[in-house]
Amino acid sequence: MSDEQRNREAALTDRVVASFASTPDPRLREVMQSLTRHLHAFLREVRPTGSEWQEAIAFLTDAGHITDERRQEFILLSDVFGASMQTVTMNNEADGAATESTVLGPFFIDGSPPIPLGGDISFGATGQPCWVEGTVTGTSGKPVPDARIEVWEADDDGFYDVQYGDDRTAARGHVFSEPDGSFRFWALVPTPYPIPHDGPVGRLLAATGRSPLRASHLHFMVIAPGFRTLVTHIFVRGDELLERDSVFGVRESLVKDFVAQAAEIPTPDGRDLGGREWSRVRFDIVLAEGGA
Amino acid sequence: MSDEQRNREAALTDRVVASFASTPDPRLREVMQSLTRHLHAFLREVRPTGSEWQEAIAFLTDAGHITDERRQEFILLSDVFGASMQTVTMNNEADGAATESTVLGPFFIDGSPPIPLGGDISFGATGQPCWVEGTVTGTSGKPVPDARIEVWEADDDGFYDVQYGDDRTAARGHVFSEPDGSFRFWALVPTPYPIPHDGPVGRLLAATGRSPLRASHLHFMVIAPGFRTLVTHIFVRGDELLERDSVFGVRESLVKDFVAQAAEIPTPDGRDLGGREWSRVRFDIVLAEGGA
Repeated sequence: MSDEQRNREAALTDRVVASFASTPDPRLREVMQSLTRHLHAFLREVRPTGSEWQEAIAFLTDAGHITDERRQEFILLSDVFGASMQTVTMNNEADGAATESTVLGPFFIDGSPPIPLGGDISFGATGQPCWVEGTVTGTSGKPVPDARIEVWEADDDGFYDVQYGDDRTAARGHVFSEPDGSFRFWALVPTPYPIPHDGPVGRLLAATGRSPLRASHLHFMVIAPGFRTLVTHIFVRGDELLERDSVFGVRESLVKDFVAQAAEIPTPDGRDLGGREWSRVRFDIVLAEGGA
Repeated sequence: MSDEQRNREAALTDRVVASFASTPDPRLREVMQSLTRHLHAFLREVRPTGSEWQEAIAFLTDAGHITDERRQEFILLSDVFGASMQTVTMNNEADGAATESTVLGPFFIDGSPPIPLGGDISFGATGQPCWVEGTVTGTSGKPVPDARIEVWEADDDGFYDVQYGDDRTAARGHVFSEPDGSFRFWALVPTPYPIPHDGPVGRLLAATGRSPLRASHLHFMVIAPGFRTLVTHIFVRGDELLERDSVFGVRESLVKDFVAQAAEIPTPDGRDLGGREWSRVRFDIVLAEGGA
C-alpha cells in the first residue's frame, strides 16, 4: 500500500472521530469515538470489498426484520460473538470466592411462583426430577438468610414455558434461604437445547461450522440486601457441550456434579417419585458484598 | 482491575475467536475472527453497563424496523460512521493523478436517459442551470473516447426524482465522451440536503451535535473499457458544509469552482435561458487503468 493510500485512510478515520468531538454528553462522546476507532481498525484490517460490505448490510437488515416482541436476533448476535458474556464479565468483576456470573438469557420473567423450601418448581414440565440443595453465604463465609433464589430452566423438549405461547408457568419459581443460609427444592435435570437458529444468526453459525446448542444448565438469580445480585447458571459435569456452548456462558467453577440416583434410593425428603430415577446436585452460592 | 479479572476477559475473547477456527471458507473465518477481536477490544475499552448494552441492542432493533424497500437505515449508519467512505477508499486505491472516488449513495439507478452532448439532464427539476464541461483521459494523459458518463443530483428542494414516488425521471442522465475525450451538458447547481434523519440515525446525529446535511454535490459514474469504473461527486467550492459533510464524502480534489454567470452573459452553446442567471463548472476526469 502506498503512503498516500495509508494517509487517506488514516485521515478519514480521524475526521470521523473528530465529528463526534462536540457531543454534549461525555460518556456518549467516549463511546462513539471508541466505536469509530475500532470499527475503522476492523475495516482497514479485513479490507472488505464493496459486495462484502453489502452482504454485511443485508445481514443486519435480515436480523432487523426477523426481530419482534418474541424474537430478538440482535441479542442472539451479541450472544454468539460473546459480547453478552463479555458485558456480564465486566459488570461482575472477579471478587475472591464469590460465585461467578453468566448470561441472563431471554427467558427470565418477573413474578415467578413462590415455592416452599423443598417444593417442586417443575409444575408438570417434563424431565428427570433433580434435588437441588446448597447454602447462600457472603464472601466472609457468613450465612445469608432470606436470600431470594430465582430458578428457571427448559423442559426435556428444550423449551421454556414462555416459548409455548399458552400462558403456562412451569420449570420456574423462587425460594428463600433459611436462617442458616440453606435452601433446597426439586427441579429437573437440565438438557441441551439450541438457541433460535432459523434466522440470520443461525445461518452464520452454520456457515462457520458452529453448533447452536447451549450446554445444559439451570438458571439462578440470587437477590439479597447488601449483596451484589448474582445472575448465573449451573452446568452439568460431563456434558459434551461444555466446551462449545453457543453463547460462551460456561465457567469451570459453575460446572457441578449432577449425581444420578437409582429409583430405589430414598429421596432426601421422603417424596415418592413413583419408581422413577432421579438426580441430586449441590450448589453453594457465595455472594459478593455490596450492591442494592 | 485485578489480574484475575483481566485474564477472565482475555480468555473469553480467545474462546470466541477459537470458535470460528473451523469455518470452512478461509475469508469468512478471517473476517469473523477479526470482527471478534475488534468488537471485544471496543467492549473492553468502553466497558458498557448492562443498560448501555441494552440501549445498543434497542438502537439496532429500531434501525431494523424502519428499514424497508425504500429506506435503508443500516446504510445510513455505515455512512455516518464513515464506514461506507472507508470501504470506497480501500477499494479505489490512490493511483497517481486518477480522479478520487467517493460514495455511490442510495439514489443511482440503472437505465438513466441518454442525453446528447450539450443536452440538459434536468427534465424539469428545479434549480439554477449549470453548464458542466471537461475531458476524460487515462492517467497517461491519453483521451478516453466513448466513456459513459452517468450524472445524477437532487433538485433545489433537496430531493432526487426517485424520492417523489411518482415514477418521474429528472436531474439524471448519461452522455458519452467525444473522440478527443471531451464532454459537456446542462445540469443544475447542486444544493445541500439532509440524509433521512427521522429515524435512529437522525437521533444519533442530534445527540452527538452533528448535522444530517450533505455538502452540495453532483454525482458522477464514469465507465470505460480498460479503466477502473469511477464513482465520485464534484462539490461546490465555498459551500460551508464541505468541512462537515454528514457522510464524509468530500475530498479536496473534488471541490470545484462553480462560477456564477450573470443573465446577460451568453451561454456556451447559445441556449436561451429566458433571462435567468446560470453557472459553469469544469471537471477533468482522469481514469485509473485496469478494471473491466
